[in-house]
Amino acid sequence: MSPKITTELLKQLRQVMKSPKYVQEPVQAYIVPSGDAHQSEYIAPCDCRRAFISGFDGSAGTAIITEQHAAMWTDGRYFLQAAHQMDNNWTLMKMGLKDTPTQEDWLVSVLPEGSKVGVDPFIIPADQWKRMSKALRSAGHDLVPIKENLIDTIWTDCPQRPCKPLITLDLSYTGVSWRDKIVALRSKMAERKVLWFVVTALDEVAWLFNLRGSDVEYNPVFFAYAVIGMNTIRLFIDGDRMTNPAVREHLQLDSTLEPEFKIQVVPYGSILSELQAVGAGLSPKEKVWLSDKASYALTEAIPKAYRYLTPYTPICIAKAVKNASETEGMRRAHIKDAVALCELFNWLEKEVPKGTVTEIIAADKAEEFRSQQKDFVELSFATISSTGPNGAIIHYKPVPETNRTLSVNEIYLLDSGAQYKDGTTDVTRTMHFGTPSAYEKECFTYVLKGHIAVSAAIFPNGTKGHLLDSFARSALWDCGLDYLHGTGHGVGSFLNVHEGPCGISYKTFADEPLEAGMIVSDEPGYYEDGSFGIRIENVVLVIPAETKYNFKNRGSLTFEPLTLVPIQTKMIDVNLLTQKECNWVNDYHQKCREVIGAELERQGRHEALRWLVQETEPLTRVQ
Amino acid sequence: MSPKITTELLKQLRQVMKSPKYVQEPVQAYIVPSGDAHQSEYIAPCDCRRAFISGFDGSAGTAIITEQHAAMWTDGRYFLQAAHQMDNNWTLMKMGLKDTPTQEDWLVSVLPEGSKVGVDPFIIPADQWKRMSKALRSAGHDLVPIKENLIDTIWTDCPQRPCKPLITLDLSYTGVSWRDKIVALRSKMAERKVLWFVVTALDEVAWLFNLRGSDVEYNPVFFAYAVIGMNTIRLFIDGDRMTNPAVREHLQLDSTLEPEFKIQVVPYGSILSELQAVGAGLSPKEKVWLSDKASYALTEAIPKAYRYLTPYTPICIAKAVKNASETEGMRRAHIKDAVALCELFNWLEKEVPKGTVTEIIAADKAEEFRSQQKDFVELSFATISSTGPNGAIIHYKPVPETNRTLSVNEIYLLDSGAQYKDGTTDVTRTMHFGTPSAYEKECFTYVLKGHIAVSAAIFPNGTKGHLLDSFARSALWDCGLDYLHGTGHGVGSFLNVHEGPCGISYKTFADEPLEAGMIVSDEPGYYEDGSFGIRIENVVLVIPAETKYNFKNRGSLTFEPLTLVPIQTKMIDVNLLTQKECNWVNDYHQKCREVIGAELERQGRHEALRWLVQETEPLTRVQ
Repeated sequence: MSPKITTELLKQLRQVMKSPKYVQEPVQAYIVPSGDAHQSEYIAPCDCRRAFISGFDGSAGTAIITEQHAAMWTDGRYFLQAAHQMDNNWTLMKMGLKDTPTQEDWLVSVLPEGSKVGVDPFIIPADQWKRMSKALRSAGHDLVPIKENLIDTIWTDCPQRPCKPLITLDLSYTGVSWRDKIVALRSKMAERKVLWFVVTALDEVAWLFNLRGSDVEYNPVFFAYAVIGMNTIRLFIDGDRMTNPAVREHLQLDSTLEPEFKIQVVPYGSILSELQAVGAGLSPKEKVWLSDKASYALTEAIPKAYRYLTPYTPICIAKAVKNASETEGMRRAHIKDAVALCELFNWLEKEVPKGTVTEIIAADKAEEFRSQQKDFVELSFATISSTGPNGAIIHYKPVPETNRTLSVNEIYLLDSGAQYKDGTTDVTRTMHFGTPSAYEKECFTYVLKGHIAVSAAIFPNGTKGHLLDSFARSALWDCGLDYLHGTGHGVGSFLNVHEGPCGISYKTFADEPLEAGMIVSDEPGYYEDGSFGIRIENVVLVIPAETKYNFKNRGSLTFEPLTLVPIQTKMIDVNLLTQKECNWVNDYHQKCREVIGAELERQGRHEALRWLVQETEPLTRVQ
Repeated sequence: MSPKITTELLKQLRQVMKSPKYVQEPVQAYIVPSGDAHQSEYIAPCDCRRAFISGFDGSAGTAIITEQHAAMWTDGRYFLQAAHQMDNNWTLMKMGLKDTPTQEDWLVSVLPEGSKVGVDPFIIPADQWKRMSKALRSAGHDLVPIKENLIDTIWTDCPQRPCKPLITLDLSYTGVSWRDKIVALRSKMAERKVLWFVVTALDEVAWLFNLRGSDVEYNPVFFAYAVIGMNTIRLFIDGDRMTNPAVREHLQLDSTLEPEFKIQVVPYGSILSELQAVGAGLSPKEKVWLSDKASYALTEAIPKAYRYLTPYTPICIAKAVKNASETEGMRRAHIKDAVALCELFNWLEKEVPKGTVTEIIAADKAEEFRSQQKDFVELSFATISSTGPNGAIIHYKPVPETNRTLSVNEIYLLDSGAQYKDGTTDVTRTMHFGTPSAYEKECFTYVLKGHIAVSAAIFPNGTKGHLLDSFARSALWDCGLDYLHGTGHGVGSFLNVHEGPCGISYKTFADEPLEAGMIVSDEPGYYEDGSFGIRIENVVLVIPAETKYNFKNRGSLTFEPLTLVPIQTKMIDVNLLTQKECNWVNDYHQKCREVIGAELERQGRHEALRWLVQETEPLTRVQ
């Protein structure tokens, strides 16, 4: 993969940074955040401004361009990828490493006195604005909102904002109607004494109305905002999608409804002016609830005294705790997904030795098998199909320039998942189709021990996920090894494959306590730059745990794996496992054999079934 | 222990809260924080205002008195103690439990509209002021500084502020001269481009000048502030202590020195006016560095634009990393301390069956044995000598009303430590002088497993202590058990037994990364209200760890126990230990036997030596 040449683009950007046509006063620096106006992680092509200006297209990264410098902050998942994709104009700022400056510190160190730093107020979250603005001000600079996005001014072939048809989800998928979700939301609003709630995150709009879309690849969401009052519901969405009779029926747009459930459909682009009108009409003590990650522009629309900001919205928290219908859907989706992967791995075992399977072919084949399953919609993220050294690029996506052929001599890492109408999957398996080295097995086994330590952990109700992160690393740490990413993320129910407010990470972001019904991934890894990558990932459901005692009647929790795909026993050094860990693997494989075996049988996939049976033979410790 | 009757005191306080003599406008609530003007955890009797008004004398707690209510916030260590010490006028707010409101939320819920909330600006840390003030303002109330402390106005027999003689520490104890510490501090100041540094924490003043005092019980500190400029040193301390020739010589007060090392001695009480003068004389870009935990009063003395606030000061961080002289001193202190405890436990084994040893007698005996050791100064905290149900009161201190007799039927928990001129100790052992029940042994063994998991942990350089906390709980969690306190705290070197910036806790306060030379405690526990308490505590030194691999050349760390006191094997259910854990106990006991055995021998303490040898017999797993 050759880097994008950005010399000309940066020159153009630096010109508009000084052009009175776009900025009231010249700005000495311009920040290009990762997200869109909804602070989405995955974004539509029209919102890929940071990738456009820099070439780096990972899911997380912030670019800052000054008159002299262009710098990119990204995290450990993307160090290699960003270094490959960016040309010499760019400096890579490796977040999480000790000597890497924060964006604010860096700006202060490079800016001339009294500088202006520009940013699109619709893209920057309010909490980031606040932190950045404060740091800059205390160093004598100013953060200024630039209404017109400066990247858009130089992006001549910028694609259109998508506006694709919607899918309606009935109660059998969602378990709760959108009316009942509104009722629950209003009750949370009443508790906090707020009159209005602004829904800005795309997955929150989708979840609230039991609708899905396909405006953003991999994430079944659609561009919309919602403003919920105690007696009104306003949905900001481009209207032509609302002509679909199924959608009109689902939202009861043409029914005679109690006024408080009557949805007013308003154009997407009018959110700011409508919100400003709401803000202007407030009386003292009337509050408007927004996420503190909502954009600075929307947050500013509500006068400060009337804002009620929280890191996580009540929708985000309600959405994270899956109800019985959603949990059952997720189980079904994971069974189908496992069937597809058994087919794939069986196929790879036969084909890889022939030397004809590339990373791209393997990824396509995985998609093919998944698409044969009922209610398949699309992939849930770009398949990471990586062999040998590519496996060490943590969020690698094969492209023709990097495409490597799978062989019996290299480790193969497949991190993939799909959106089914009943659930979202995300699974990583690391395989060897020849004979792994003792060192590869050793590293794999440490990663597996970490995976098991999290999956089998028992912990008190209300424990925050970050308190479990070290369990995943302990076996690696013992040997001086580690991995530079978190251990797990929340997973949506036919929604975003990454969702808050829970997760398992050494980063002590404000994660919400784990509770039964939440779904997270468990995915420790180990990566050697230039040689291989190992990751073992299951999606797991938080469930109550039975314990011998029950301190303070708090109750305990543990995890149940939803992912049921064999973990390659060939890669395991059994003698590095404890008996308890060995039993865990055997019990897990027994369950894979029973549950997935039955489904393979039902689908008449006998060859894949034979592969499954062979891959789930119990391990025995020789000690 | 009967609660303090506070009806009359609260009445008086509510009167002064409205009295124009003390407040410009009546205040509807008055906050009484835990600390003193230096935000000390342990405070002098004259600063025990919260204990005076409420009766609750634990080391942490904040009282808030409104016209109708009196409420006390404290943490899990003190729930039982606070409930015992306070009368019915008080509501106990159990911090850390889900349903307990924050002070701000509670105030907002009880105050009439537009209330004023008063607090002593010298006592409240600036960061707390900021948070509290913001929360109150957004609910329409005001936090106001009340210059005269309102508790002091009703505290007719308030003791005098202590002003005891100073101890000078030479290089053999400190490793670094105060001049070199000033040079290092100024280099940190230059790095951050600040011109002034204000030392507000008592242990930071003591450490910086290599002086110790005894103004506060258990903490060898003295009331002082310091203001360090690039060319000036001002020490705010009551001057009569400066007449001591040894102190004058140590600080070179009468020598001809380069002006930048000339210490100006200024009265303690003039800090505010001197700081206001510094603040008034600043030019743009001239900054003053303070801890964000410095008092609101001192912080406000520096105009906002000139303040540079950090959660931890460079002194706090430098102080935490012990040099070779300090580490050796800590080792010596812990050997002496172990000798004293071997004597004590040997004595208890003989005396307890007679039924004549009370908690107080045992605590006194522990102090007696410690005081026989070289360079003993005082205890490092109030001895927690607790048997049976008293053991469940986490920071219990025996008083005549609660004093219980040790017996062969109950668990005995002793958490104690001392200040020696060469180091500070803090050790907890839990013993049974008869035959423990299977359940007691089971719980003890889970706690021991947690203790070992932390002590033997290997982790990357730069890991924050909070990432190790769950290791201490995992064995307890597996059985549904837990404990409601952190796992470890930093320990000073002949300084405060609790010090920042590192620690091991599930609370994700901003702990600084662990590095070699830091010293923390490792003290998991288990407590059953009304029956018993178990805690196993060692002080441990962070040391480099040898590992098989070395990911990213980061290096690894682990802990070396400085505390070398046998862990009662009678309390261990050996079959709940893994072989690795069993080996850890045996290795630890082997080291106790060698190191402490040699010292007992040297001191001619043969009976205690026999006890040590018997208590350090290796364990064997029967499996």
